[in-house]
Amino acid sequence: MKPDIQPNESVFTWAAPPLKFGVGAIDEIGAEAAATGASSCLVITDRGVRETGIPDRVQRSLTSAGLKAEVFDRVGVEPTDESIAEAVTFAREQDWDCFVAIGGGSAMDTAKAVNLLTTHPGELLDYVTPPIGEGTAPWLPLKPLIAVPTTAGTGSESTTICVIDFLGLHLKAGVSHPRLRPSLAVVDPRTLLTLPPEVTAASGMDVLSHALESYTAIRYDAKSAPEDPMRRPAFCGSNPISDVWCEMALGLVGKHLRAAVCNGRDLHARTQMALASTYAGTGFGNAGTHLPHANAYPVAGAVKDYQAAGYPPMPMVPHGQAVSVTAAAVFRWTYPADPERHLRAAELLSGRTFTRTDGAEALPGVLTELMADIGMPPGLRSFGYEEKNIGELVDGTMKQTRQMAVVPRPLDRAAAERIFLQSL
Amino acid sequence: MKPDIQPNESVFTWAAPPLKFGVGAIDEIGAEAAATGASSCLVITDRGVRETGIPDRVQRSLTSAGLKAEVFDRVGVEPTDESIAEAVTFAREQDWDCFVAIGGGSAMDTAKAVNLLTTHPGELLDYVTPPIGEGTAPWLPLKPLIAVPTTAGTGSESTTICVIDFLGLHLKAGVSHPRLRPSLAVVDPRTLLTLPPEVTAASGMDVLSHALESYTAIRYDAKSAPEDPMRRPAFCGSNPISDVWCEMALGLVGKHLRAAVCNGRDLHARTQMALASTYAGTGFGNAGTHLPHANAYPVAGAVKDYQAAGYPPMPMVPHGQAVSVTAAAVFRWTYPADPERHLRAAELLSGRTFTRTDGAEALPGVLTELMADIGMPPGLRSFGYEEKNIGELVDGTMKQTRQMAVVPRPLDRAAAERIFLQSL
Ligand SMILES: [Fe+2]
Ligand SMILES: [Fe+2]
Repeated sequence: MKPDIQPNESVFTWAAPPLKFGVGAIDEIGAEAAATGASSCLVITDRGVRETGIPDRVQRSLTSAGLKAEVFDRVGVEPTDESIAEAVTFAREQDWDCFVAIGGGSAMDTAKAVNLLTTHPGELLDYVTPPIGEGTAPWLPLKPLIAVPTTAGTGSESTTICVIDFLGLHLKAGVSHPRLRPSLAVVDPRTLLTLPPEVTAASGMDVLSHALESYTAIRYDAKSAPEDPMRRPAFCGSNPISDVWCEMALGLVGKHLRAAVCNGRDLHARTQMALASTYAGTGFGNAGTHLPHANAYPVAGAVKDYQAAGYPPMPMVPHGQAVSVTAAAVFRWTYPADPERHLRAAELLSGRTFTRTDGAEALPGVLTELMADIGMPPGLRSFGYEEKNIGELVDGTMKQTRQMAVVPRPLDRAAAERIFLQSL
Repeated sequence: MKPDIQPNESVFTWAAPPLKFGVGAIDEIGAEAAATGASSCLVITDRGVRETGIPDRVQRSLTSAGLKAEVFDRVGVEPTDESIAEAVTFAREQDWDCFVAIGGGSAMDTAKAVNLLTTHPGELLDYVTPPIGEGTAPWLPLKPLIAVPTTAGTGSESTTICVIDFLGLHLKAGVSHPRLRPSLAVVDPRTLLTLPPEVTAASGMDVLSHALESYTAIRYDAKSAPEDPMRRPAFCGSNPISDVWCEMALGLVGKHLRAAVCNGRDLHARTQMALASTYAGTGFGNAGTHLPHANAYPVAGAVKDYQAAGYPPMPMVPHGQAVSVTAAAVFRWTYPADPERHLRAAELLSGRTFTRTDGAEALPGVLTELMADIGMPPGLRSFGYEEKNIGELVDGTMKQTRQMAVVPRPLDRAAAERIFLQSL
């Protein structure tokens, strides 16, 4: 066996788009777009968000600022190669100087793809990470893209990633490049006021999970250095900058998620959850998510006929539900990798005090309690999974190499199986 | 009197360049520059920094990555219109695809000016904020600028501001525009190992002061909304994102500045101070500095023959000394604006506990103690100022409109005089 004399990693990276945050921020989008020199702008959203009136309000802000503006509202609930092709075809019919994405991850990921494919030739698969796609890196500047997250969850407003469901291939794949990152994130807590409680709960659990996974991911300097420093993995692991944001986000979710779910018009709770989500995006976007997110892909992908209340009527496990359903079991298993951090996370989420005597059960206990309070499905059986499905779920998890790289302790199939079994 | 019915501000903004942090980060600059598509790069630094060998090491990293690279090392100790003109003339002789600034604020501010004036026509005064300059906004993209701070202090690697001493006009003035912000900050704690103790101390007090002033600045939502949202003041005031970073930076300075001054080779202390400085740059760059920085301009500007140990032999009050000399008196005076924050800052800096019983003296006491430990000049008399100079110093302070806008309580001449008197 070749001895591993590769030195440890000693460098971490961090990046986030400029941010405009606060009540009234969306009414400044016209002025922001005009300041980029744009004279036309395409607003990209979905029908559900359009019904809130926000996209049309943004369109008015754009036309008041002297821009030609249109709204495209046919973003898919989960972006697929087909729904993105439709958006691209629409966008390519005219010249657009800039884009505004309004909604959750679907709208923002669709807008990233549209921005890529109206500034570059070809189709999506040319740019998707190999082996699924060609992996061509965008070589031209993209247009300004203003991202307006309206779910306080995804963090897509800050990332360089666009995830697409390739229907014919039966798999999800992504395009990731710094040029895809939105040029401005605009967060207005008022846009959250009409989110249904189920969406608030699931999106909130997604924020929580981003924070908890980044906080407990392998440390950036506790793994070997990359052969080529310009080809670092997408996730760099926990680090001193990410840690600060994670702790803050956990504290805010622990204090305000219940209130935001119970009374959606609570502007204070909404503002604090919008901040928590912003911390996730700007603060620890590239530290890395690990096992709960790796598990979420097969859990969401293999769904048969589960329909989530508060979501469009179609078989779907909302991302925040898929992510949180295995969280308690995951963090029971990762506890030995860093007991202090797990106890500290439990404290931040609960406002209570925990010691080593509470041990591995402290954090799973706090998570289970929170999920019950906000009405999250407690286990995989809620989605229709049984013992016999676990092999297939484990297969899906083990394929998520991006997440596997920052799991804080070595994972084998047996451990993954136990985690899914405990999560039934 | 016209009643003030202007609504309160409800929006804050935040932005920072991408960051690469860690031991060995400077050796990746060649690869980073090549990744921008550049084939030539000018390294901008000063003679003192060049003697450390860092600029030549970066030049080798650039040439190894296939770029043509040169080092310009004639940056002034404080950038003046003359020293910048020299750098611009040099840079304009060839076409440069990108720039690397290595050093303190002087090198980074000079590089910002060079980047502006090699991509745009005219001279510096065309772009300086009115009434001193024309206030023309840069209308073209600038070249990639990689900023490598080697003093753990200024924060210039993250800001959009370039401050210049106009010798003929006897005043300092600035150019500020988002296009001036460096495209990447590279922080390598090893570059700090050879800083003299006096420079470590002064730079550390500058970081401390940025954090303390941003933390105690007027809240972003406790002032009236701007008439034009695209013309917000440069400083937006304290806000929930800035606050987190300020607290973190204060804690790190309180814990590690003494060790970094006492033993410059303490890589752990250096790393923590580099992080504190990075927090200042990335976390609260635009929250705002207030009175200590406003006072620092006349204190540094009117210096007669003070020579600081550890600095080049010329009459000069180092920025960190100028900023901290009035800090104790300032924070005694600002205490009533937010007692809890002042006590919390004292706790973070000292690791001790303070209550309202300790009152306005807690924070000045902690500051005085720290400054004595690291050998900072205790008062204005150290620089040669006496009672008779105070009128002139107050004049200088009251002109600093950018800082005045975020002082947390109304300041009149009498209060400014008392602060300078207490600081003698
Ligand atoms: Fe997620
Ligand atoms: Fe400063």
